[in-house]
Amino acid sequence: MTATTDTSPRATDAVTVLGLGAMGSAIAAAFVERGYRTTVWNRTSSKTAPLVAAGATAAANPADAVAASPITVICLLDTAAVDAVLDSLVGAVAGKVIVDLTSGGPDHARAVARWAEDQGAEHLDGKIMSDPPDIGSGPVTLPVSGSRRAFEAHEQLLRELGTVTYHGEDAGAAAVEFMAQVAACYELLIGFLHTVALVRAEGADTVGFAERLAETVGQLAGLLPTMAHAVETGTYPPDLGPLDVQAALMPDLIAHRDAIGVESVRMREVRELMDRRIADGHGDEGFSGLFELLAVAATPER
Amino acid sequence: MTATTDTSPRATDAVTVLGLGAMGSAIAAAFVERGYRTTVWNRTSSKTAPLVAAGATAAANPADAVAASPITVICLLDTAAVDAVLDSLVGAVAGKVIVDLTSGGPDHARAVARWAEDQGAEHLDGKIMSDPPDIGSGPVTLPVSGSRRAFEAHEQLLRELGTVTYHGEDAGAAAVEFMAQVAACYELLIGFLHTVALVRAEGADTVGFAERLAETVGQLAGLLPTMAHAVETGTYPPDLGPLDVQAALMPDLIAHRDAIGVESVRMREVRELMDRRIADGHGDEGFSGLFELLAVAATPER
Ligand SMILES: NC(=O)c1ccc[n+]([C@@H]2O[C@H](COP(=O)([O-])OP(=O)(O)OC[C@H]3O[C@@H](n4cnc5c(N)ncnc54)[C@H](OP(=O)(O)O)[C@@H]3O)[C@@H](O)[C@H]2O)c1
Ligand SMILES: NC(=O)c1ccc[n+]([C@@H]2O[C@H](COP(=O)([O-])OP(=O)(O)OC[C@H]3O[C@@H](n4cnc5c(N)ncnc54)[C@H](OP(=O)(O)O)[C@@H]3O)[C@@H](O)[C@H]2O)c1
Repeated sequence: MTATTDTSPRATDAVTVLGLGAMGSAIAAAFVERGYRTTVWNRTSSKTAPLVAAGATAAANPADAVAASPITVICLLDTAAVDAVLDSLVGAVAGKVIVDLTSGGPDHARAVARWAEDQGAEHLDGKIMSDPPDIGSGPVTLPVSGSRRAFEAHEQLLRELGTVTYHGEDAGAAAVEFMAQVAACYELLIGFLHTVALVRAEGADTVGFAERLAETVGQLAGLLPTMAHAVETGTYPPDLGPLDVQAALMPDLIAHRDAIGVESVRMREVRELMDRRIADGHGDEGFSGLFELLAVAATPER
Repeated sequence: MTATTDTSPRATDAVTVLGLGAMGSAIAAAFVERGYRTTVWNRTSSKTAPLVAAGATAAANPADAVAASPITVICLLDTAAVDAVLDSLVGAVAGKVIVDLTSGGPDHARAVARWAEDQGAEHLDGKIMSDPPDIGSGPVTLPVSGSRRAFEAHEQLLRELGTVTYHGEDAGAAAVEFMAQVAACYELLIGFLHTVALVRAEGADTVGFAERLAETVGQLAGLLPTMAHAVETGTYPPDLGPLDVQAALMPDLIAHRDAIGVESVRMREVRELMDRRIADGHGDEGFSGLFELLAVAATPER
């Protein structure tokens, strides 16, 4: 891969990567390829071999690895693995920038930010929403949050990996974005699989169904910002037609699934919420108005 | 609107529309515009006025309306409304083609097909997946099933309304496609609204989130046919990464929602299914493999 002006290789710039699973290895390889002086460490040391062959330097332990570069990228399996490695880095990160790209929740990101501050390090949290093979070349979405100063100093390095969006100084903000995106995607995918069970039990062509649904979903995606806007303004235009009309279908839709033996937990919820909105006098409004009936127990405390 | 070659107006072709709600009125208006001799009927007769002004003929009752044309399109609120109108058409439909575009389930479509056969009529069932203003001009998806002979004879008339796909002679097939598409869309949308509650409680920008999610969902849509193919072949490549890696995130994802007070019914289900697949030795496979654990109680009887 040859570098463009925007991603100019910096033979003098150094970066450390802790964790060489599928994702950490792809990240380290992207840095090596772009000309960064790359130091790597992995718990199972044999995984450093391909990176070393490509030009990286292997460190014997996390502290030595961190010492080799001004910035260290962490990408481990989960937050428990991050905590284990950070325990071994107490006293070893002062003056460094730590970027944690391990998937996890906002509370953990905020805890790591506090730990880094106590240790005299700067901290960024980032979340990767893509496949390892795409790192550095394909469509990679990388929300990042935490120290603005550290972000501005190292933005170019992060952009070697994908499309970076900075979500502000709250270290947990990137994780909020990530958790929300992952959840919404899983909602679609698990609902899709249940529905494939319905289509299949009816003897219809599931791949053809999925192809047509992909088009529908592609169009529906455009409605999401409109619906978020409706939620923000509290006015709910009939986005998919009025609730009166949509609700009329739900008994048949649920009865059909019941007859086949396909679960309907969300469809029952949608029906109940629609009926309540209609009873409240909102039958001429849209689906987005169901938001009004979703309880949120508490505002989070920091 | 001027007609193109594909949608040439046929001043001699006649069509009847029963039901002039938002959707039926849009359908009748499209036929009038395209030059069809259009007869209309609606329970509340005042709704015929705009159509008559545009050139349609109002009939005094459903039987008179059906008598005026070789083909009758029905578009009422729900299946109960269709049953009520069909009751008034006993003995009045022999030799006619009945196209029911009312939303409903496959069993009802099959029951109407049997009724039509008993009455000496031909029958098609169609389901509209679009807004009334799009009828005849915007992106309208219209799955149709039932009598192939009737479909071929009247395909052009149906294509005046939108993009028609013929799903075969089983009268219920269009309804299966429709119910499945609607359900999958509602899964995405209700899951999205819950997740907006999370984003909002965290103080993040919901519209920005929705805009970014729309892009993610647009990309994710392309995975649906791949996942359906995985289900058909029973081999489950690591579509979103291996389950081992995906599952590691679920405890944090659920704990985050619990802490905010946002519901997680689907996320708990996903977590449990992932854990079971991993325990069964499929941790290196993908999300689509969760399908194997979804129970379908029965194969439908006809
Ligand atoms: N793979 C994907 O498609 C994908 C996509 C988006 C985001 N991500 C995220 O990227 C991160 C890494 O995923 P991956 O695919 O690289 O996972 P992976 O291939 O399973 O690698 C896991 C890494 O974590 C290390 N590790 C686990 N527990 C540890 C501990 N207690 N102490 C030290 N190291 C430990 C492993 O070390 P050993 O080699 O010694 O086991 C390995 O380097 C995860 O947070 C994942 O959610 C992955
Ligand atoms: N609107 C949309 O965005 C949309 C989108 C896709 C599909 N659809 C489907 O299109 C169909 C019609 O929807 P719509 O928007 O036109 O609904 P609508 O505006 O509420 O109109 C309902 C129609 O049904 C008639 N009706 C109801 N009960 C009846 C009964 N017992 N006997 C005779 N007529 C009866 C009404 O007659 P009166 O005028 O006398 O009340 C009216 O013509 C529905 O199945 C809907 O799911 C609608």
